[in-house]
Amino acid sequence: MAKKIGTGTYLLEHAPSAAAYAAIVGQMEGEGPLGACFDYVEQDSYFGKDSWEQAESELQRRTVGTALQKAELTAQDIDLILAGDLINQCTGTTYGLRGMGIPLLGLYGACSTMAEGLALGSILMDSGIARHIVAATSSHFSTAERQFRFPLSYGGQRTPTAQWTCTASGAVVLAPCQNAPYLRAVTIGRIVDYGITDANNMGAAMAPAAADTILRFLADTGASPKEFDAIVTGDLGLIGSKLLCEILQKEGVDIRKQHRDCGAMMFDPEQQDTHAGGSGCGCSASVLCGYFLPRIRTGELKNILFAATGALMSPTASQQGESIPGISHLIHISADKKGGN
Amino acid sequence: MAKKIGTGTYLLEHAPSAAAYAAIVGQMEGEGPLGACFDYVEQDSYFGKDSWEQAESELQRRTVGTALQKAELTAQDIDLILAGDLINQCTGTTYGLRGMGIPLLGLYGACSTMAEGLALGSILMDSGIARHIVAATSSHFSTAERQFRFPLSYGGQRTPTAQWTCTASGAVVLAPCQNAPYLRAVTIGRIVDYGITDANNMGAAMAPAAADTILRFLADTGASPKEFDAIVTGDLGLIGSKLLCEILQKEGVDIRKQHRDCGAMMFDPEQQDTHAGGSGCGCSASVLCGYFLPRIRTGELKNILFAATGALMSPTASQQGESIPGISHLIHISADKKGGN
Repeated sequence: MAKKIGTGTYLLEHAPSAAAYAAIVGQMEGEGPLGACFDYVEQDSYFGKDSWEQAESELQRRTVGTALQKAELTAQDIDLILAGDLINQCTGTTYGLRGMGIPLLGLYGACSTMAEGLALGSILMDSGIARHIVAATSSHFSTAERQFRFPLSYGGQRTPTAQWTCTASGAVVLAPCQNAPYLRAVTIGRIVDYGITDANNMGAAMAPAAADTILRFLADTGASPKEFDAIVTGDLGLIGSKLLCEILQKEGVDIRKQHRDCGAMMFDPEQQDTHAGGSGCGCSASVLCGYFLPRIRTGELKNILFAATGALMSPTASQQGESIPGISHLIHISADKKGGN
Repeated sequence: MAKKIGTGTYLLEHAPSAAAYAAIVGQMEGEGPLGACFDYVEQDSYFGKDSWEQAESELQRRTVGTALQKAELTAQDIDLILAGDLINQCTGTTYGLRGMGIPLLGLYGACSTMAEGLALGSILMDSGIARHIVAATSSHFSTAERQFRFPLSYGGQRTPTAQWTCTASGAVVLAPCQNAPYLRAVTIGRIVDYGITDANNMGAAMAPAAADTILRFLADTGASPKEFDAIVTGDLGLIGSKLLCEILQKEGVDIRKQHRDCGAMMFDPEQQDTHAGGSGCGCSASVLCGYFLPRIRTGELKNILFAATGALMSPTASQQGESIPGISHLIHISADKKGGN
């Protein structure tokens, strides 16, 4: 059974497995430094559909399907699916998963969704209430850009702090302990708001939430950053990453050697004109499923912390002058079932 | 530990308590047939704030605060809060709960959110991973109307099938078994889509999802409708309620004697010009917390099924010709910890 320690941290006694995982991305993500990691790179931004919202739904549907196939399971084998996305009313999830008939707990955690789903899913698995749970999410550049910023055809100039919403999706099939990667502990995020109001500087809005969650995990478990091969954030990007390290240093915690950020890893900012890096629910989800989980399975990485961050930003609230609250959920993922912390 | 039976139904061995609950509503809901049931009726549609989104946040904040007060707990005592709402990026939840510092699992289930939160929360409680969990949600007529339908100042004529989004919020504090009401079993919803495309006929879009969930619960547990004092749906309204009973009758299940719908109960359609009834996350949440839970505590009602329904409708998807998928999560709530089914 998951055992609570400290403030929102749960140790997972049975350490459920990420039995299978899949990542599908768009053309631009495929051309980035991680292009070879993903299960499939789709060249058509419409994914063969008539609208971008339909494209994102198709992307999430295919990604969950690929993960199920790799797990040698069908939708009927899955007890619960935990999923959500960035688009209003979670369109990608609703229409993407509509045909599967799997009991669904819909999530909203913005770009922290994959970490939220994995954290909740692994607590439920560890408590023995399900045999197979899927955690999934997606994002699409074109659905997010027109919803959160400007119509694409407006052709607005991007600020240097702006991030690029990834067309990407990730899905993980959780199963009772079989083989690595194992999910060993989670810390559930709290809303943290430092008063950032610039919707083109999401990294700065999310960094304090990542810091809060990482600090709580370390305090609750007594672990030190050097016990981890990587401390991975979701999509703080280049600017938010620097801020995170600074906030933590002020608290006496140095993660600069271990810190990796999926948003900073996804693109080559020199070659791809993506400014501060990638973002979107699918960014951290696809980098987790395409890059990190396979390296934990082979043992190349032993222990990582995956702390995806969500900017709980509403364009309506922003127009009303509100600041952007952030949230970050964390999972300790390991090549070993026990040991370490 | 929660025990899975059938397709998405979980029996709750320890039957966690709804230890405290609160409901706050707006003026119009206060003038309806249930007006005397609620903890507080706010006459100011702005709740003392500058915008309707801020008003909804304040509404959710006050409701959670009232529930905590009734439970004689503070935010620090709460292990997890499970919450979401109808407004894009769950604005009411994010800004309403921002100051509380409680670990948050953000949900998106449209008007099924209270049932989703209670279902998930009671599974987590039953598995012993938390001592206190809060499930909460809200809706506001003015935030929802302008987001999902028309700007309020447009003054559009409402169709006879339209429902009225309630300005209302409900919050439940779950605690280890103390006293009634007890949460005895849950059924997690699946996405069901019969192809309804009329955003002014949400009841019809949601009725098939409610039918799917109620049928699964009855099949999985072997229970019969007559074992329940009430089978409560969220906000099918007058039209969706009739459809639900018809769908179930075709399946050989007659719930006409037990069926109650929070949307149909909230307003007097003759006096209040609300057409097919109330809707919104806060509709079923406030009627549950204001009307049903107190009557289960006193023993006036022994056993109810609460099956809130969500229309997973996106205005963007609707404009693209998509139909409206529905989902419904169900909880069996009882005055007795054991017995019955």
